[in-house]
Amino acid sequence: MLEQIDLSKKMSKKDAKVRMEELEAELGRLQRQAKDLNLPVMIVFEGFGAAGKGYQISRLIRALDPRGFSVFSVSKETEEEKMHPFMWRYWTKTPAYGRIAIYDRSWYRKVLIDRFEGITKPKQLVYAYEEINSFEQQLTDGGYTIIKLFLCIDQKEQKKRFDRLLESKSSAWRVTKEDLKRNKHFDEYKQMNDEMLEKTDTDAAPWTLIESMHREFATVKIYTAVISTLQDAIAKRKEELAEKEARKGGPEVVAEAETAETQTAEQGGSMLQDDVLRTSSLHSVDLSLSLTQEEYKKRLEELQAEIAQLHGELYRRRIPVVLGFEGWDAGGKGGAIKRLTEKMDPRGYQVHPTAAPNDIEKVHHYLWRFWRELSKDGHIDVFDRTWYGRVMVERVEGFCSEKDWKRAYQEINDMEKDLYQHGAIVLKFWMQIDKDEQERRFKERMATPDKQWKITDEDWRNREKWDLYEEAVDEMLVRTSTTYAPWIIVEGNNKQYARIKVLQSVVDAIKARLAE
Amino acid sequence: MLEQIDLSKKMSKKDAKVRMEELEAELGRLQRQAKDLNLPVMIVFEGFGAAGKGYQISRLIRALDPRGFSVFSVSKETEEEKMHPFMWRYWTKTPAYGRIAIYDRSWYRKVLIDRFEGITKPKQLVYAYEEINSFEQQLTDGGYTIIKLFLCIDQKEQKKRFDRLLESKSSAWRVTKEDLKRNKHFDEYKQMNDEMLEKTDTDAAPWTLIESMHREFATVKIYTAVISTLQDAIAKRKEELAEKEARKGGPEVVAEAETAETQTAEQGGSMLQDDVLRTSSLHSVDLSLSLTQEEYKKRLEELQAEIAQLHGELYRRRIPVVLGFEGWDAGGKGGAIKRLTEKMDPRGYQVHPTAAPNDIEKVHHYLWRFWRELSKDGHIDVFDRTWYGRVMVERVEGFCSEKDWKRAYQEINDMEKDLYQHGAIVLKFWMQIDKDEQERRFKERMATPDKQWKITDEDWRNREKWDLYEEAVDEMLVRTSTTYAPWIIVEGNNKQYARIKVLQSVVDAIKARLAE
Repeated sequence: MLEQIDLSKKMSKKDAKVRMEELEAELGRLQRQAKDLNLPVMIVFEGFGAAGKGYQISRLIRALDPRGFSVFSVSKETEEEKMHPFMWRYWTKTPAYGRIAIYDRSWYRKVLIDRFEGITKPKQLVYAYEEINSFEQQLTDGGYTIIKLFLCIDQKEQKKRFDRLLESKSSAWRVTKEDLKRNKHFDEYKQMNDEMLEKTDTDAAPWTLIESMHREFATVKIYTAVISTLQDAIAKRKEELAEKEARKGGPEVVAEAETAETQTAEQGGSMLQDDVLRTSSLHSVDLSLSLTQEEYKKRLEELQAEIAQLHGELYRRRIPVVLGFEGWDAGGKGGAIKRLTEKMDPRGYQVHPTAAPNDIEKVHHYLWRFWRELSKDGHIDVFDRTWYGRVMVERVEGFCSEKDWKRAYQEINDMEKDLYQHGAIVLKFWMQIDKDEQERRFKERMATPDKQWKITDEDWRNREKWDLYEEAVDEMLVRTSTTYAPWIIVEGNNKQYARIKVLQSVVDAIKARLAE
Repeated sequence: MLEQIDLSKKMSKKDAKVRMEELEAELGRLQRQAKDLNLPVMIVFEGFGAAGKGYQISRLIRALDPRGFSVFSVSKETEEEKMHPFMWRYWTKTPAYGRIAIYDRSWYRKVLIDRFEGITKPKQLVYAYEEINSFEQQLTDGGYTIIKLFLCIDQKEQKKRFDRLLESKSSAWRVTKEDLKRNKHFDEYKQMNDEMLEKTDTDAAPWTLIESMHREFATVKIYTAVISTLQDAIAKRKEELAEKEARKGGPEVVAEAETAETQTAEQGGSMLQDDVLRTSSLHSVDLSLSLTQEEYKKRLEELQAEIAQLHGELYRRRIPVVLGFEGWDAGGKGGAIKRLTEKMDPRGYQVHPTAAPNDIEKVHHYLWRFWRELSKDGHIDVFDRTWYGRVMVERVEGFCSEKDWKRAYQEINDMEKDLYQHGAIVLKFWMQIDKDEQERRFKERMATPDKQWKITDEDWRNREKWDLYEEAVDEMLVRTSTTYAPWIIVEGNNKQYARIKVLQSVVDAIKARLAE
């Protein structure tokens, strides 16, 4: 997940101040509602050292009635805690119904700091993850809301913050030897964090990444994440109560339940999708990147020759390759796929165009048709549009329920992990262009007789929903970019640049695997 | 789970015939309903060789419209299948909506036969289980019903059946070398099956154990299991549709939904709890077992001395012990606990009586209070009544929803596994007496002045629900008897015998652990 984060995110103090006034009032209101509804809430702060967990917690509780929450600081296990099962110290600190518990570090310590320090042994790791997911599942099944925030800064910023703390005696004690060690081996530690995020970003208790280079931005995003989740939980709870009443009492209360639901849709959920607060680096992609025709031709020739040769080696070693292409309409998927496969042995690859499901596909699980299309090991499967339709078009157009697409992130990650575990190279490309470039291409298509078939009214209609799609793409990139099946964002305004980037990425991935 | 099965179960041909007429008609009716509702259904047959999978499948489909189902026979992976990810062959065989797929062996092959044969390597095992659970979770989340049947026979019966098949040329080919090898190493193979059952008996797709020593009994139980699950799934589906309609259409349809729900409660769910069809060995427990007062005294003294000594060793090595006591009212829990702890150092153990939750406990997750009560490593925690209240009294009295207690089996298993993984010895005792013995003890208590406090009106009321409790206890014993935290059924009509069995079991478990 971490590779998709855009750490340059910031917000002006003025902008933040305006927002915060509203957010603080809203959070206070929600705390009272949650209390009245007996909802227990757990807010977890994790992230890199000096990312500002302490500051942000004190900032968050400013809006809260102090009688309704507790803050737990999780440091090394005490002797007492060591002599109990791992989860004992956390079970005993779960909040009562109607209360909020805030954790400055948490049960994730065991798979992060304690793992880095060697306190958690490699063989304990698998079960630790099982325990964590089971703990969160049990609580959320029992009506708890768990909000997990991961505060991110980069290595340089962390060093700068540590140095600043070390300058003064009054703050130097806050920086430990271990902190400095984790800063020195930042990449290694980051990798552990990334693995943790992958394994625990569940439907029941998803993570929100908080870009924390800029304090104000982080505060606004944290408040927004907490508020948005609470709004959803409260609306859901109200709906449940109304349904319960409806079963007893009859029609009148049903009407109320519907109102509650409508409210959710209006107020909740989408708050984090506020343009500024989005997580992925989609917005900061440099679309000016380009190649001259000359450079393009030269590199294209080289890379195509290389792929042809690697393709043979893949076949010989029976390594399967699965490549997924997604992107804006007219984003250049077709052109890239064409250049990718042009010089390949046609017996060794297969391009699967994915249209709307046909009648047979419609009466199966949505992943069924993709499983069916998988070729034998040693072949390259190229999917022109993919299973990600579930979390893009199906989400945006309402072809499946919110519950369905929210669950799909994990389902898709599971499927890609199955492929990876079987030995496949799995890569996903997002072809990014901006709205102007799309318009230019649409118009060009309409003006060019033999390209007219490529453009339909539906394309123009989809274009009108650009913002909704962007929202969906953003969440998709963050939740499904994994170490075993990463997303590669392709700067697509310049077609030549885009095609070369795709080819190069495929070559790199194959070479890396062959070298293993 | 397997250790709780009672393989002596049988049924007269006449009784079976009467039942089958009704069951076949009902199954046919349900297939039509499932088709109309577009419900996809998967029925998995697993179990020991020669347990009768083939016969039972042909028996099952007799009631089905052949246009609506397919049977898949799963043997060793083909070359084609080997060159695809593990789950590919099963994903491609998932049924369309409204259809039934029946599997003669299934994806479980990988963790059973293929594991035994060494085809599945130990390091592949963890991920194979993840894939299996994720596969079933995805399908059930997507509206599929998965019915998993495990056909059980014992080693001797299997050998007999193999021998019979080998006698004739026309059937000898059905017995392979591998079959005979698995028969020879039956215990080892059974252990793999037991582990599989433990890891995959999920809320989404639970197992039903089928005692298959007697064909007629097995057929009736299979039909009953399939019918009962289908009834539930159909009722649930109807309810969903009605709710959907209600949101659109208003109050009238709500009434229908309620009817659908009421019907479920009446017809579904409990069918398998038909006295005869129950799984656990509770009914066949030999309650005549007893000890003379003399034997009792002698062994009590020996065992108490042994426990006192072992207790010290446990403390020295910091091994935690968690003992749970459940059983019928007046089943002898108190007496057994008293004898168990009498000679122990009181600083090293703690008895936790579990009453109805107090006000503080009521506003927490139901497992919270048990986590809190855990002592430090090296201590013995004795729970007089336990977390199993969730699946007994709370289930029977309706203190929690059906969804809640059905989910609880897995939650409880997870909690006990956490304790085990931390190094604890976890044992659970079920104190079994019969209804007459209970009455005798109740009356004795009422007649004895200093025992009168032990008997309340509630005890008499609970007694009236004996059958409902028995149903709950049966399912509890099967679903939560695990290799890491087994149930021990204590024949309790004779108090002396019962107490000695408890002490002996504790001594054995501690000794076994100390010897590891």
